[in-house]
Amino acid sequence: MTDLPSRVRIAEEGPREAFQIVDAPIATADKIALVDALSATGVGQLQVASFVSPKRVPGWADAEAVVAGFAPRGGVAFTALWFNPQGLHRALAFRDRLSLGGSVTVAASEPFSRRNLNRDHAGQLEAMRAHVAEHRTAGVPITRVSVQAAFGCNFGGEVGAPQAMTALRDAMALAAETGCEVTRISLADTMGWANPRAVARLVGAVREAWPQADITLHLHDTRGLGIANALAGLRLGVTGFDAAVGGAGGCPFAGQPGAPGNIATEELVLLCEEMGIATGIDLEALIAAGHLLERFLGRQLPSALLRGGSLAGFRARQAA
Amino acid sequence: MTDLPSRVRIAEEGPREAFQIVDAPIATADKIALVDALSATGVGQLQVASFVSPKRVPGWADAEAVVAGFAPRGGVAFTALWFNPQGLHRALAFRDRLSLGGSVTVAASEPFSRRNLNRDHAGQLEAMRAHVAEHRTAGVPITRVSVQAAFGCNFGGEVGAPQAMTALRDAMALAAETGCEVTRISLADTMGWANPRAVARLVGAVREAWPQADITLHLHDTRGLGIANALAGLRLGVTGFDAAVGGAGGCPFAGQPGAPGNIATEELVLLCEEMGIATGIDLEALIAAGHLLERFLGRQLPSALLRGGSLAGFRARQAA
Repeated sequence: MTDLPSRVRIAEEGPREAFQIVDAPIATADKIALVDALSATGVGQLQVASFVSPKRVPGWADAEAVVAGFAPRGGVAFTALWFNPQGLHRALAFRDRLSLGGSVTVAASEPFSRRNLNRDHAGQLEAMRAHVAEHRTAGVPITRVSVQAAFGCNFGGEVGAPQAMTALRDAMALAAETGCEVTRISLADTMGWANPRAVARLVGAVREAWPQADITLHLHDTRGLGIANALAGLRLGVTGFDAAVGGAGGCPFAGQPGAPGNIATEELVLLCEEMGIATGIDLEALIAAGHLLERFLGRQLPSALLRGGSLAGFRARQAA
Repeated sequence: MTDLPSRVRIAEEGPREAFQIVDAPIATADKIALVDALSATGVGQLQVASFVSPKRVPGWADAEAVVAGFAPRGGVAFTALWFNPQGLHRALAFRDRLSLGGSVTVAASEPFSRRNLNRDHAGQLEAMRAHVAEHRTAGVPITRVSVQAAFGCNFGGEVGAPQAMTALRDAMALAAETGCEVTRISLADTMGWANPRAVARLVGAVREAWPQADITLHLHDTRGLGIANALAGLRLGVTGFDAAVGGAGGCPFAGQPGAPGNIATEELVLLCEEMGIATGIDLEALIAAGHLLERFLGRQLPSALLRGGSLAGFRARQAA
């Protein structure tokens, strides 16, 4: 296992993911309490809110209040998500509290592009041109290119590495043309179609084409292979991962209500730390934040580790 | 990923595992229906019951009725579990319906040995001597050596590869001394302490010491790393896995009520088949059996795939 990195950067997306699909409204104070609990775990990047249409995603109608309310903390980059100029302008009001950075985003599947981004691939590329211009005007850097549905799609089926690479090349070309300095490529398994072999193929192809770019894997655990896919990434030296505490979230437009969401941050941290890969995250504090989120949602999250408990307690008992 | 095998042998242990920990009694007819549903999936080996003390494991008080009631099917080896002469003799009554085979079993952790096997390591080795003699008298072959708690223990803490190898060597020596022809070594992560690096270390050590033996991994998903540990085994060419439909089960003596159980057979099948490794198992039929078990238990099982659904339906929709 010689390609394993010595350290990884995990971006915690639990708050944004968890509250975009909810059965009943969650109090703004609870959302803030989750953000504060997570920012104390040692995580370096924390996505706290989503500036999206309150009509499409009512769970984030209070994004402003959450962003205004959390306690800033040194060493943590607090981020937010947006997809359009309205979202960008809502985020700009919080330049003092948020680390603002944009993405050039495309989907590797046409039907998913239409469903999730509301445009076909060509239309999305055109929209991204305007998107980059708006960010430039606002002084918000775009250093990341993201490919959604990079491994498969519930509406478009299989996405092989060549198909994902085509979408990624288009996005990279547009980013270069519009003067973005891209340092990070994010590959998202939005609907849980990836497997370790597919991860190896796509990561290998991306690395060959853009050897200098950092790669982030955004993995979902829809069908139980999320953590094995993360391991495949680690073995190829991938050092960037998105994850959500408790395995919260999932795609609201994937047509799979009840399916598990993102890989659980605490399971990814356990995987890494047990193999000697540093995450900088306090696993016990993260598990406590997961239980807090379960209390706010009033239901159990998919994470096995929240049920099984960490090894630290058993080790301490043994050492005593 | 060049060491990946082209085919694996998955032993389905769902019935035995699921019904050994239940909140309320399950009807014998339901247990039989689950066995029949699973035997139709293409699985080659299916553990249908546990001949253990009805006082310690009341869920298996009806083992005889279940074994007498399932429908035999060609190509499927129906097995059962026992730990003592009483269990062996109960199993012997079903020589015509069961594939009887014994194990020399030890635990790599002293405290777990005392708790799960009711004896310390030395006592267990002595007991295994009598156990082998009883099997010989009964004409039941012992070709397998099993190590429980091979990666760690909730009561004894960390178990490194050297400690597991010591327990395994003792068991192999006893098996050789008593004339057992061991062809299979089973390594059990009984309480979910393994990680991919630990799997690689122990599998490597076992392979070096006994290059001819087949290795089986019996993995639990207590903390969410089960499927990543299975991937680590596959990458080392391991071809034998135990699993339980739905991720049912768990160890009744691990002191972790509510923790997830074994790795879910359907997730292991998905992992293998998506990477081009044949399992011989019909994934759709297996998922249906998982939903049947959930109905019998009256609760959801830990498997993500039972929630997310297989890819076949989405692929078919796409091809249409």
